[in-house]
Amino acid sequence: MGKIKRIGVMTSGGDSPGMNAAIRSVVRACAYYRAECIGIYRGYQGLIEGDFVSLTARSVNNIINKGGTILKSARSDEFRTKEGRKKAHENLVEHELHALVVIGGDGSFTGGVIFNKEFKFPIIGIPGTIDNDIFGTSHTLGYDTALNTAVEAIDKIRDTASSHNRLFFVEVMGRDAGFIALNAGVGAGAEEILIPEEDLGLKRMLESLKKSRRAGKSSSIVVVAEGDKSGKNVYELAQYVEENLPEYEVRVSVLGHMQRGGAPSCFDRVLASRLGVKAVELLLDNETNLMVGLKNNEVITTSLEEAIKGGHAINMELLRVSDIMTT
Amino acid sequence: MGKIKRIGVMTSGGDSPGMNAAIRSVVRACAYYRAECIGIYRGYQGLIEGDFVSLTARSVNNIINKGGTILKSARSDEFRTKEGRKKAHENLVEHELHALVVIGGDGSFTGGVIFNKEFKFPIIGIPGTIDNDIFGTSHTLGYDTALNTAVEAIDKIRDTASSHNRLFFVEVMGRDAGFIALNAGVGAGAEEILIPEEDLGLKRMLESLKKSRRAGKSSSIVVVAEGDKSGKNVYELAQYVEENLPEYEVRVSVLGHMQRGGAPSCFDRVLASRLGVKAVELLLDNETNLMVGLKNNEVITTSLEEAIKGGHAINMELLRVSDIMTT
Amino acid sequence: MGKIKRIGVMTSGGDSPGMNAAIRSVVRACAYYRAECIGIYRGYQGLIEGDFVSLTARSVNNIINKGGTILKSARSDEFRTKEGRKKAHENLVEHELHALVVIGGDGSFTGGVIFNKEFKFPIIGIPGTIDNDIFGTSHTLGYDTALNTAVEAIDKIRDTASSHNRLFFVEVMGRDAGFIALNAGVGAGAEEILIPEEDLGLKRMLESLKKSRRAGKSSSIVVVAEGDKSGKNVYELAQYVEENLPEYEVRVSVLGHMQRGGAPSCFDRVLASRLGVKAVELLLDNETNLMVGLKNNEVITTSLEEAIKGGHAINMELLRVSDIMTT
Amino acid sequence: MGKIKRIGVMTSGGDSPGMNAAIRSVVRACAYYRAECIGIYRGYQGLIEGDFVSLTARSVNNIINKGGTILKSARSDEFRTKEGRKKAHENLVEHELHALVVIGGDGSFTGGVIFNKEFKFPIIGIPGTIDNDIFGTSHTLGYDTALNTAVEAIDKIRDTASSHNRLFFVEVMGRDAGFIALNAGVGAGAEEILIPEEDLGLKRMLESLKKSRRAGKSSSIVVVAEGDKSGKNVYELAQYVEENLPEYEVRVSVLGHMQRGGAPSCFDRVLASRLGVKAVELLLDNETNLMVGLKNNEVITTSLEEAIKGGHAINMELLRVSDIMTT
Repeated sequence: MGKIKRIGVMTSGGDSPGMNAAIRSVVRACAYYRAECIGIYRGYQGLIEGDFVSLTARSVNNIINKGGTILKSARSDEFRTKEGRKKAHENLVEHELHALVVIGGDGSFTGGVIFNKEFKFPIIGIPGTIDNDIFGTSHTLGYDTALNTAVEAIDKIRDTASSHNRLFFVEVMGRDAGFIALNAGVGAGAEEILIPEEDLGLKRMLESLKKSRRAGKSSSIVVVAEGDKSGKNVYELAQYVEENLPEYEVRVSVLGHMQRGGAPSCFDRVLASRLGVKAVELLLDNETNLMVGLKNNEVITTSLEEAIKGGHAINMELLRVSDIMTT
Repeated sequence: MGKIKRIGVMTSGGDSPGMNAAIRSVVRACAYYRAECIGIYRGYQGLIEGDFVSLTARSVNNIINKGGTILKSARSDEFRTKEGRKKAHENLVEHELHALVVIGGDGSFTGGVIFNKEFKFPIIGIPGTIDNDIFGTSHTLGYDTALNTAVEAIDKIRDTASSHNRLFFVEVMGRDAGFIALNAGVGAGAEEILIPEEDLGLKRMLESLKKSRRAGKSSSIVVVAEGDKSGKNVYELAQYVEENLPEYEVRVSVLGHMQRGGAPSCFDRVLASRLGVKAVELLLDNETNLMVGLKNNEVITTSLEEAIKGGHAINMELLRVSDIMTT
Repeated sequence: MGKIKRIGVMTSGGDSPGMNAAIRSVVRACAYYRAECIGIYRGYQGLIEGDFVSLTARSVNNIINKGGTILKSARSDEFRTKEGRKKAHENLVEHELHALVVIGGDGSFTGGVIFNKEFKFPIIGIPGTIDNDIFGTSHTLGYDTALNTAVEAIDKIRDTASSHNRLFFVEVMGRDAGFIALNAGVGAGAEEILIPEEDLGLKRMLESLKKSRRAGKSSSIVVVAEGDKSGKNVYELAQYVEENLPEYEVRVSVLGHMQRGGAPSCFDRVLASRLGVKAVELLLDNETNLMVGLKNNEVITTSLEEAIKGGHAINMELLRVSDIMTT
Repeated sequence: MGKIKRIGVMTSGGDSPGMNAAIRSVVRACAYYRAECIGIYRGYQGLIEGDFVSLTARSVNNIINKGGTILKSARSDEFRTKEGRKKAHENLVEHELHALVVIGGDGSFTGGVIFNKEFKFPIIGIPGTIDNDIFGTSHTLGYDTALNTAVEAIDKIRDTASSHNRLFFVEVMGRDAGFIALNAGVGAGAEEILIPEEDLGLKRMLESLKKSRRAGKSSSIVVVAEGDKSGKNVYELAQYVEENLPEYEVRVSVLGHMQRGGAPSCFDRVLASRLGVKAVELLLDNETNLMVGLKNNEVITTSLEEAIKGGHAINMELLRVSDIMTT
């Protein structure tokens, strides 16, 4: 492998707060180490189409606090084909790019691993997704911000819930992982939290809601992850409770895409800055196929393949804490 | 009419940010003028049930910045019956209450007018609803806060919309009135705003979205009021556009009840403080059947009957501004 | 006066939230009416230096929610000289600019009036300053946002004040005008408000603080405008109280420049959008020397000369409300 | 040691966001395990004065999201005397309290250690301070919230800094520890960060600011910790730079006490919930003299004595990242 002099950076998959801070960090680290940095628009699709832009330290002024991604993101069916990946590689060769930093989730990393196998092209991954469902890091970029967004929204909903003695079902994001639901649920003081990892059973929920009312609570919030195991979606859950607990006036709120946006929290900005620097330093040290992540407040690396395969187990202690909090 | 020495205060109908600030103002104004103040829980229902609490100046410490209402709110079917209102009046007589401040919307004021007719009981109304659909005031309590809440949420959605070149339909509150949709739409820089007052037609919307894309906009936000005139709800609208403009990737977000909660804006806190004082002063001056409101930054009064009947016309100039902004 | 085909826009004086929204509105209104729009950097200084940029409808995407001003702002001593203004005019002629929209405060308008007298150059002013000290408009751009920023900061300070039973002196902006202090003070539930318009006297403040403690309040907030009439600055005031009321533990917080920044409120964004359109329409109608403003929720115009001369009287009713609220 | 049936909880020292969430957690955990919970007002001073309140699970409804502390906090000189501590112990015996949870910083823990030595009274500490300067936990309660508060304020200041091409010195809290300055500085994209742990030298700062301007940055933010090693306070620093770099227009902003208040972040609420449960469980298991904390996202314990003695080293990698970011 020759010397790395020109590094590409892209954001791929669903966007998350902190992606811009990570782009800024990659660009500034390149400038610091006197490597060139090329931005690739719309993830792998832009790679295939050669949609590139040269980035200097000044190109990324005043983006550390912006949600979304200045490089845009997209899904690319074409990159799933051998033909598409070949075009992508030709563009990289033509533009004399020597390595790639991919900011995204496990779908994006899977694409990177295949691409690296086929073309021996150096790739480092930075975990960017609000779902926190990636092995090899305690926190993904955007997760902390999404938690604050969810909790602030639920705080507002609680104002009206408690004014009207109502029961609210609030759906938060996290299709296969209950991290947001569990943490935002505890943070918002939810009476009940339904997550995909745990099948608590609908009867148990009814019991818990009855208990909560007996305990003198006049309003309640149930936080539900998108893909919870009950098999019912949030509207069906609400109907089920209304039918079985007619004393409750039930309302539903789906927080939706606002959880993906907004100015990143300080935590996500600092994390993005640290991971971006490490990603560039690894490439300059001729490392490849690694994901940078955080563990015990230290920056660590994991092989991309492990990061894809490994799950990120939910914290069972926190479920127990949640239970105790709803006494 | 004898001297007013004991004044009741209640919140009724849907809650809105600033209701607590108004309660505080009524309570403190009573204390200032050496009248007693009695809080009535859960609106007219609490009046019927005699669910009262004595409030002193210190009872309302640190509530000016809280969403919701410490007196709770509820709908009361019983108050729609002569029997219910009779019970309510008996409670007022028994507790020696001489007048009532009702913080709520036009439904609450209608109840107040009927009650006053039947029992000659002095009532002053304070307009509290996020919808701004009440005649006799330029701003209802909570409207300004709800606008900021909506705009901040749409700002977040725009982050993700522009990162993915998507079209978002965002539904905001306001069942019969497009105030929130029109103002939050302009404030959030929406490409299109659909409100109940205007039937712009679905074809016009399609044309506008096509124009917007031709003009080089890669992402778009359409703000839709709950009860817009198209007759389609926001999910049907989204589907309609997806079918007719397949180049768009469409998403829906319903902001929902979070718009009712949250710490009130400075504007709503100041408005609540001014209206609460005026309501008490009017009662002490033996005035009744009036709503206090704001016009040209002055506190004014309108008869409750007018306030109920009159509509609050949408600002057509703002529709035109919105049109120009989407050039 | 010939036909207006090319309009310049600048921001001048201290920046305020909503200036970007106003720039966007001017640019989009020009595009709508098929006039060209030229941005002038750093106010009058950029005019003198010919620091211009062509602005299209797309140049102002995604700035409606940004604080500060993309055109930057500066003070210009050179523009106070005849020589400087001559250079400015030469640049305007050379670049074939036919009219100017100046977003700023009364200092900026004064420069505009002089310039218009000397060169008959059409100018419309948009009031942009957080201080709300301009005649001819109920609200200046940025004022509403600054109030919310101040109130949110004071809410945080109250948390710690009431946890420690402390007295806080909080200084807010507004050198010659007490608008921010009076409204943010009422909005934050301050026990005392000191503004330049009113010399309440230091003894009266001591009495009021003593009364407040006797009334059972264990913590207190005093909001002070930068230029209050007591002649003492906020640190001296704090010391004065500590010496005279030793039972109080006193702290000072100066909110400072954060009050000038941040995403504009919905109100300021809508106001900016309306005023920008009107400014362009006036110029295209060959009007000049006017300031656009808001009165009774309608867009109105005032001659620039009046706008400069006239003051904007403080709302004495609000002082009275503040007094009642601290019962 | 007998069975623990009645547990006291207090907040002591400077307040921090999350203290209420921790109180709630202690109270609810007591209820869950069927122990009584007694709140002690104003820390050790309230212990001496017997200022106690009985707390049930319902007493702590809706406080998880509130800044400050419902139990108030205070410094107590009397508790530093043997006499004072004796009174405190007598109150505990009289009210049949068997153990104490102290939420506070190292000063509060020192008092606890002495008290435990003298009276063998079981004590568990929960680290609550925004400064993050306590050994035995990666995060103290309130630190994450304070970072977000600081970063949001600096974001606002940057709006006005970049509109006017100014240099701002922003002082953040953290008298002996630079955690807030270092992390908020990186998070806010500061050009320079001055912390007590590092004496970078004033000349180095001047060089760095010159470099930054040469690199094309027209505005700059320098974040300064209260107690930075330069020996100059933030106003002197600003003056020093103005004298040596006259091309800069310099401004100062001291963020001050607002950093201690506000609704806690989701992180701080979850941390508080976890630590409160653990504290109660430890006491019920007859453990004492421990501080609960977080390490690698697990709840751990440290002896109070170690927690007091040990420092919490600043992350030097982050200083390096900060350096690279200002390229």
